[in-house]
Order: sequence, then C-alpha cells, then structure tokens
Amino acid sequence: MKLIDTAALEARLADFARERDWDRFHNPRNLILALTGEVGELAEIFQWLTDAQAEAIMQGDKAEHVRQEVADVLLYLMRLAMVLKIDVDAAVRDKIALNAKKYPPLPEA
Amino acid sequence: MKLIDTAALEARLADFARERDWDRFHNPRNLILALTGEVGELAEIFQWLTDAQAEAIMQGDKAEHVRQEVADVLLYLMRLAMVLKIDVDAAVRDKIALNAKKYPPLPEA
Amino acid sequence: MKLIDTAALEARLADFARERDWDRFHNPRNLILALTGEVGELAEIFQWLTDAQAEAIMQGDKAEHVRQEVADVLLYLMRLAMVLKIDVDAAVRDKIALNAKKYPPLPEA
Amino acid sequence: MKLIDTAALEARLADFARERDWDRFHNPRNLILALTGEVGELAEIFQWLTDAQAEAIMQGDKAEHVRQEVADVLLYLMRLAMVLKIDVDAAVRDKIALNAKKYPPLPEA
Repeated sequence: MKLIDTAALEARLADFARERDWDRFHNPRNLILALTGEVGELAEIFQWLTDAQAEAIMQGDKAEHVRQEVADVLLYLMRLAMVLKIDVDAAVRDKIALNAKKYPPLPEA
Repeated sequence: MKLIDTAALEARLADFARERDWDRFHNPRNLILALTGEVGELAEIFQWLTDAQAEAIMQGDKAEHVRQEVADVLLYLMRLAMVLKIDVDAAVRDKIALNAKKYPPLPEA
Repeated sequence: MKLIDTAALEARLADFARERDWDRFHNPRNLILALTGEVGELAEIFQWLTDAQAEAIMQGDKAEHVRQEVADVLLYLMRLAMVLKIDVDAAVRDKIALNAKKYPPLPEA
Repeated sequence: MKLIDTAALEARLADFARERDWDRFHNPRNLILALTGEVGELAEIFQWLTDAQAEAIMQGDKAEHVRQEVADVLLYLMRLAMVLKIDVDAAVRDKIALNAKKYPPLPEA
C-alpha cells in the first residue's frame, strides 16, 4: 500500500500544463524558484503573528489564504517531482526509514 | 475520487511524531521555518548548475540527495497541513479550479 | 577601514521602527519569516525567465520591482542583525576570511 | 551622506570572484538560488526554538553559526546587487521613502 498516492494529481497537472503550453517553463530551476516564491507567500502570512495567533489562524479570516498557499507549495513541489521523475511515495518512504534510524523512538513509559 | 491521497502518510507521520514526543515542536511557525530550511537545501543543490545540468541531475551522483530533499519538503509540508487541519486533497482541487479560471486553456490547434 | 558601513542605515531603521511602534514585532523569528517572504518575492520575478532574460532584467520594465525587492531583503536582514546585535562589518570580514581559506585563489596564469 | 556604504565590500567581492574565476557562476538566477539556500540555513537554526530562546541565541553556542549565516545572506545579496548593477544605497533610500508614505508614523503621545 502506498503512503501517498499522487497518480490522479500528477495526471491532472500534466493535462493542465499541456493545455496551456507550460511544459517549456517547467524545468527544475524554474520550479525551485517558484517553490521559493510560494513558501515566501506562506511565510509572509505568519511573519508578524505570535505562536498562539498562528495556531488559531484557521479559525480566522486568513484561513482561505493559508489553504491556497499550502496548495500552491504542494502543486509546485509535485511538478518538480514530475519533471525530475521522482516517485514521491518511494522517496517519502525511504526518507522516513532514514529518519527512523537517525532518531530512534523514545522508550515507552 | 481523490486527486491526492495522503491518509496513510498522515497516520505514519502522526505516529512518528508521537513516538518521539515531537508534537510540542510542530507548531505552524516552526514548521514554516523547517520548510524554508528544506527548500533552501534543495535550492543549494541546483545553485551553480546550468538549466541543462539541472535537467540531467537524476542521472548523476546527486540524484539521491535531490530525492531526499524533495521528500523532506513534502514531509514538513504535510506536517504543516496536519497541524493546520487542512485537507490537502480539497485544497489542491480548489486551487486547480481557481487557476483554471485565471489561466484558461489555449484554444486547440 | 570598514568593508561595509551600515551605521546611518541602522540609525534610520531604529527611528523608523520606534516611530511606528514596530519594535515589538521585530524579533528574530518574525524577521526570518519576513526575510523568507522577501526572498520569495525576488524569486518570483525570476521564476519563468531564462538566464539570458534574467541578465537583461534591469533594462526592462521589471527593473524597479527587482530594485525594491533587493532593498526589502537588505532592510529585513539589517533589522535581523540589529536585534541580534551582530556587527555586520565584522561578520562579513570574518566570513570572507573563512571562505578565502576554504577556497584558495587560483594560481595566476 | 550614504545610509549604507558598500564600496569597499563590493571591491573585495569583485576581487574574490575574479581570483577564483567565479564570475561565470554569478548570474542572477544562480545567486537567488544561493540566497535561498543561505536563508534556509538561517531558518534551520531557529526552527525549533521558542521566541524567547531565539532572542537569547547570541548568548549561546549557536551565536557564531548565526553570525556566519547572516554574513552569507549579505554576501550573496551584495553579489546579486553587483551583477544587476543596483546601487543598494539608493535602492534602500527609495524603499524607505516608499514605506514611510505607506506607513505614516504614529502621532506623538
């Protein structure tokens, strides 16, 4: 079983780019700059908030903006994975296995 | 049908954080700083490459590093979505619909 | 002699923040998020450009936007240095010395 | 009088790049990716800290690391300004004037 299934999203994004002739713009460096831009927009929403305000953000009028920026980061990250032909499920699975070795779980109380 | 199914990954990440008592660190601002850090590591791999070198990166010895950084960005983004209780499938679907209105497809040739 | 003299700018920024009661917002994590936001805006301007287009950007209609974003990155970086009480001239001098050891100059032809 | 005087630093960085034949790498998009990398390294230092811990960071063992990363961000930003032929003193002065109009000072108490 997959940890993350992105097949339908990847198909949708491939169509979306093709219908707009955007594949010529979607090379790795462009997409990393675009990803940087979207992470920047996300950071901007939170820059002057306290941690308490940040934790309550989805109950306020910025919720939809946050939701859209999270989606934008994910969309550009998926496009990057697509042009690099990275299987994100396998990549995530391997990285979690590495992290589990590097940071063993705490002993049960 | 979902565009992206993250249920198993979210369950795995929830366990992973709980087993290490990491939930206390995973608040929105911390996770955005962590996301910034990982996007920075991804950018660093590509910073001195030409576009041609960047497009061939998965055939060279940096492939595994790129794969791990893409996974790290995705893992922190998912943790952020989890603490903000954002349904990423719905968020991505809504954002694609917005983008489709903003950027209509080209007419068929 | 200083490599970089920021005394007048720091005095101006201190006044600017005080006159707006902004010091309460200018803590290190807030300023790093703000810096991330501004670097993101800079990246966005360049995200779909070729290297050739990027090198000619100051001759086109995006020149003023680029200039403003470079200024914004510098202003938040200086505010961060100020709240951390970092002497940027000394920091830059020390880092260049470190880099010079790490990357020796090429032999003269 | 200048708000920020970077003449000596720019001369030093020009020599440094020339002595290592690095000018060929220092184009705008490369430098923005490098800047993203350095801001990411800065963010990483602060990612799991509380605001209180972040404010005390220069009294602890991470002080020198922070100082070096602030220097790195400044060095790449200056290289970017140099290749774009941006006069940072003029850019900063103009941006502060814009900000002053956009955010008028509070009335004196």
